[in-house]
Amino acid sequence: MTKTKFKRLPRHIGVIPDGNRRWAQGKGLPKEDGYQNGLDPGMMLYELCVELGIPELTFYGFTQDNTKRPAVQTRAFQRACVDAVDMLANRDASLLVIGDYESPLFPPQLMKYKQRKTFGRDLIKINFLVNYGWKWDLHHFMNEDSTINSGSVKIKRNVFQTIASRDISRIDLIIRWGGRRRLSGFLPVQSIYADFYVVDDLWPDFQREHFYDALNWYENQDITLGG
Amino acid sequence: MTKTKFKRLPRHIGVIPDGNRRWAQGKGLPKEDGYQNGLDPGMMLYELCVELGIPELTFYGFTQDNTKRPAVQTRAFQRACVDAVDMLANRDASLLVIGDYESPLFPPQLMKYKQRKTFGRDLIKINFLVNYGWKWDLHHFMNEDSTINSGSVKIKRNVFQTIASRDISRIDLIIRWGGRRRLSGFLPVQSIYADFYVVDDLWPDFQREHFYDALNWYENQDITLGG
Repeated sequence: MTKTKFKRLPRHIGVIPDGNRRWAQGKGLPKEDGYQNGLDPGMMLYELCVELGIPELTFYGFTQDNTKRPAVQTRAFQRACVDAVDMLANRDASLLVIGDYESPLFPPQLMKYKQRKTFGRDLIKINFLVNYGWKWDLHHFMNEDSTINSGSVKIKRNVFQTIASRDISRIDLIIRWGGRRRLSGFLPVQSIYADFYVVDDLWPDFQREHFYDALNWYENQDITLGG
Repeated sequence: MTKTKFKRLPRHIGVIPDGNRRWAQGKGLPKEDGYQNGLDPGMMLYELCVELGIPELTFYGFTQDNTKRPAVQTRAFQRACVDAVDMLANRDASLLVIGDYESPLFPPQLMKYKQRKTFGRDLIKINFLVNYGWKWDLHHFMNEDSTINSGSVKIKRNVFQTIASRDISRIDLIIRWGGRRRLSGFLPVQSIYADFYVVDDLWPDFQREHFYDALNWYENQDITLGG
């Protein structure tokens, strides 16, 4: 299956890789063992996106909500995110990590991706949400001056210019693995008009057909942006 | 089918009544004729919610995005929203209409619902989004002082206290008719953790089974609020 199969592709795909803990439990493993099994699916998805020429891909790593879980799980998903970013840094992508950098729960190894860094041939923009919180994202505009100087006058900034995740563009298609039909705080502003596709299989059971099914479904949606 | 059938009900349901124009086209009617056929479904849904004791219900009336459509359609959905609110005002509910009141596209007949008004036995809270815009809603906090006085100190307000739709609570279940799997700007803050159920049938073809199917599905979802 190649690029020619699709008539219309999303420019930006958001990925919610859910179901790692359920997968581990299903194998009789401790819940926290699931996350490392989510690394290969992420790399496979990266490769499929590059092959199709998808310009931007955002992974939902972990959230501030998630860090309320048992410490052994929190350490496991922190570790998995660091590993995933390390793996992608060896490929052809520009990487940006977004989340509450000031919290001790943000892995210090990822601080260097606070500004986007480019690797290899820079074939795709990848955003990784790490210690991300939707409140943290939206509150950002209350912590800043909401006006900008334009010549001699101050003009109001719009919401896209003031949220913490302002460097992440509007999302066309969100694919969530693990069967749940909810956004769970995933980039509320960028997700406003996104089409939302749910894969019932768990993220560590990723298959390329999940992704192609989502793209096939997507190209049959009409895009109105609310109009 | 009665209340006893459900073990766990949502406290707040959001309704996206999509598909009115497609319904009209399917009947060989002009697109704008669809909206009036959405009134009876709305009343049926109101009655089903009251019967089950659902405390709060929010209808997605029309948005600022929608008003970019042809004027004949805009007039038709404005009219349908006024009629819907009038019908509900004859029942047992407290009604609040939320949207950009300052725009000429907001129907003046609905200005009196800018503050919640209670009718009859006040059995359910109903919110109606009319000339609503997600940017209008979120921008609200940039047009106000983001601090509040608490005794002698100023404290930061949180996002829930400063959005325009602050009187609408968190949504548990969103039901969208008409097959599309997207939020289209529907209350981004209140929808953060909502479970999202899609009915393929068009809104004027509403059947009570759609609603019961959504509730059956909902009670089998685990609620984690991101945790």
